[in-house]
Amino acid sequence: MNLLRERIEKEGLILKNGILKVDGFVNHQVDPMLMYGCGEELARRFAHLNVTRVLTAEISGIAPALTTAFFLKVPVVYARKVKPITMPDTVYLTVAPSHTKGNMVELIVSPEYLARGERVLIIDDFLASGSTIQGLVRLTQAAGATLVGIGALIEKTFEGGRKILSTYNVPIESLVGITSLEGGKISFVD
Amino acid sequence: MNLLRERIEKEGLILKNGILKVDGFVNHQVDPMLMYGCGEELARRFAHLNVTRVLTAEISGIAPALTTAFFLKVPVVYARKVKPITMPDTVYLTVAPSHTKGNMVELIVSPEYLARGERVLIIDDFLASGSTIQGLVRLTQAAGATLVGIGALIEKTFEGGRKILSTYNVPIESLVGITSLEGGKISFVD
Repeated sequence: MNLLRERIEKEGLILKNGILKVDGFVNHQVDPMLMYGCGEELARRFAHLNVTRVLTAEISGIAPALTTAFFLKVPVVYARKVKPITMPDTVYLTVAPSHTKGNMVELIVSPEYLARGERVLIIDDFLASGSTIQGLVRLTQAAGATLVGIGALIEKTFEGGRKILSTYNVPIESLVGITSLEGGKISFVD
Repeated sequence: MNLLRERIEKEGLILKNGILKVDGFVNHQVDPMLMYGCGEELARRFAHLNVTRVLTAEISGIAPALTTAFFLKVPVVYARKVKPITMPDTVYLTVAPSHTKGNMVELIVSPEYLARGERVLIIDDFLASGSTIQGLVRLTQAAGATLVGIGALIEKTFEGGRKILSTYNVPIESLVGITSLEGGKISFVD
């Protein structure tokens, strides 16, 4: 996905702790035209899988998941980190470590919107260690739904998430792969 | 906006405390096709105002703000409720009461993405008491940017937010107005 890679090359910043800051077009500020292009491409790659729900985690997964779901013409569900009062008493809840906050966060989905029989595509902004996505897989399994694919905008291949997620035996797609952030340089998968 | 009204009529639920639950298509689960239509209509109503930034608050403002910004062809910035480590040390921060959580929440924007000279359209899912939107206006003012309009998917006219926000002298648009949730009935503005 050349457009996304070009933006990372131009505006991505390497912070300490191996964090890639893309706050100007993915996270805090979002470029909606870029995000629609990314959603269209992710939808194309998973088009053959009869996806019935896109699942993501708030907050920064929402934009790419929404645009992917738009092109797949299916609803998108975002796991909440705090149970809102509109949710039923009984929910699916798992915990996952937060890469950018350093603590554990809860991921909560209402059984109203994730049910047995759904074919679930998980979409997130980053695929790094894979721990958030693993949490979303656990929610999918708890609901008795079927995981059919995993997609991300940006994959940090050096954090090993793909290997962990490969045990689920579903297609894993990322639009841009980054092999290293060492030496202040962003190195891309060719 | 008939499509949104029809969904509220069909799927909206009245909870205690005057909460209208629309978790099946706006909040926890989002209908991306509906949200795209809402964004197109909001963008049409504000098209003449030379908007350069759409501003919203995480989490449930993101979907309508993203689709509105897509049609206006401008970036969208969502105020964070917790300062991520990718943000600079010095930020714009205000506090606002949370309608659905009952406590005060922080709204934080980085000066990187909200600056003097920007023409800001605020978009949120609900316009109720107006307190979240007032917080976003304060962030806009703190940045020295110009507020040019306020839009929401659903307005609860009986909570008085429009009157409070009218002091800013900018157009206020909502796609569906609800005049009452009393007696277990959702009453709409004609």
